[in-house]
Amino acid sequence: MISGVKALIFDVFGTLVDWRTSVARESQRLLEPLGIQTDWAAFADAWRGEYQGAMQEVRSGRLPFCKLDVLHRRNLDIVLAKLGVDDMRVPESIRFELNQAWHRLDAWPDVGPGLMKLHRHYRLAPCSNGHVGLMMDLARHNGWHWDAILGAEVAGDYKPKPVVYQRACELLDLPPHQVMMVAAHSDDLAAAALGGLRTGFVPRPDEHGPGRSETDPQHEVDFVFPQTGLMHPG
Amino acid sequence: MISGVKALIFDVFGTLVDWRTSVARESQRLLEPLGIQTDWAAFADAWRGEYQGAMQEVRSGRLPFCKLDVLHRRNLDIVLAKLGVDDMRVPESIRFELNQAWHRLDAWPDVGPGLMKLHRHYRLAPCSNGHVGLMMDLARHNGWHWDAILGAEVAGDYKPKPVVYQRACELLDLPPHQVMMVAAHSDDLAAAALGGLRTGFVPRPDEHGPGRSETDPQHEVDFVFPQTGLMHPG
Repeated sequence: MISGVKALIFDVFGTLVDWRTSVARESQRLLEPLGIQTDWAAFADAWRGEYQGAMQEVRSGRLPFCKLDVLHRRNLDIVLAKLGVDDMRVPESIRFELNQAWHRLDAWPDVGPGLMKLHRHYRLAPCSNGHVGLMMDLARHNGWHWDAILGAEVAGDYKPKPVVYQRACELLDLPPHQVMMVAAHSDDLAAAALGGLRTGFVPRPDEHGPGRSETDPQHEVDFVFPQTGLMHPG
Repeated sequence: MISGVKALIFDVFGTLVDWRTSVARESQRLLEPLGIQTDWAAFADAWRGEYQGAMQEVRSGRLPFCKLDVLHRRNLDIVLAKLGVDDMRVPESIRFELNQAWHRLDAWPDVGPGLMKLHRHYRLAPCSNGHVGLMMDLARHNGWHWDAILGAEVAGDYKPKPVVYQRACELLDLPPHQVMMVAAHSDDLAAAALGGLRTGFVPRPDEHGPGRSETDPQHEVDFVFPQTGLMHPG
């Protein structure tokens, strides 16, 4: 793929898993029986829409580092409030269960066989803003075998802060030029490239709904995976 | 095994891998062609004998945290010097290759099938003083699948310092009483118990040579694995 690369580290939400479809389905399953009617894909988008702002509180130092479950839960409460749903209507137990939907996201179909093939040639690890416990659950849910779990929690800050990519390379015990960050998002790859990592772009044009996401990298990258995702021919 | 336990974390050197036989074999393979004759098991013991003292430099704060490869290499130079072998006789390339022997240690025979069985019921992770890169290599060498790599490096200090066990529970996102530390060494288990973790003792009576290691835990533990190691009947 790229000469000298010994490890691939992966963005997860959007790049490996279709969070939108999974979260919409779980939201409908848990909230519709409570009499809540809405566009469930739009609900998933709204929930995800609070994501960057919540992490920015941590990146800026206004909040200490906390696991993504905590931010997801805060954001769920915000989104339900915006829908006009009060605390009584959706009890704590359902909110907790729904927040755990992020631990049960389904992979894009190419990811399982793709990782299995890539595992023969590279060390593989997620480098996600999701915490270690969430990544372990997604791996079991989707049948993935990682060499290690890297990312925000072991660095104590959120991507795209440089420390997250640096800490991943340090724990892999590899110089950055032997590590490739793989993502469907140009900003993630641009931040990794600033740290000296190689970059691989995976097109996930349907992440935010049919045809509503990046089809090509917005900056120069070292490798572009084909439309077939991780099942590239190389 | 123990009610309420959701994750098992493992000591590795001695508990899962037979470092003595592997290191003796690799030392003989790499040093005998240079004309060095010695008792290779005793050489492995001497190398391992420098282990606790080197980590104590880090635990005490006299040295900043560094990967175990660095300490192993320091200790190798000490042991070769004690043998009267000078720098010229064993070149840098051989010292580097020999130091990597710790990345290629063979597991005790029960460990592979035992972990595979335990994986169905528990989250599994190493909690070793070996660094993440070394643990990844041992996993690939022995065909293990971990849920995550925990231990000294992600905590920034060495066992039995309490932070190593605490950090493991924190990253597993579990309270300590839902995590069991599994080891062949009573001192490791005693330190884990102080942090509120459950404890499981695995007898490895031959770790330091036939019949020269702990056969029973020296303190009360929650579970004792049988002589068949991780292939326990439970």
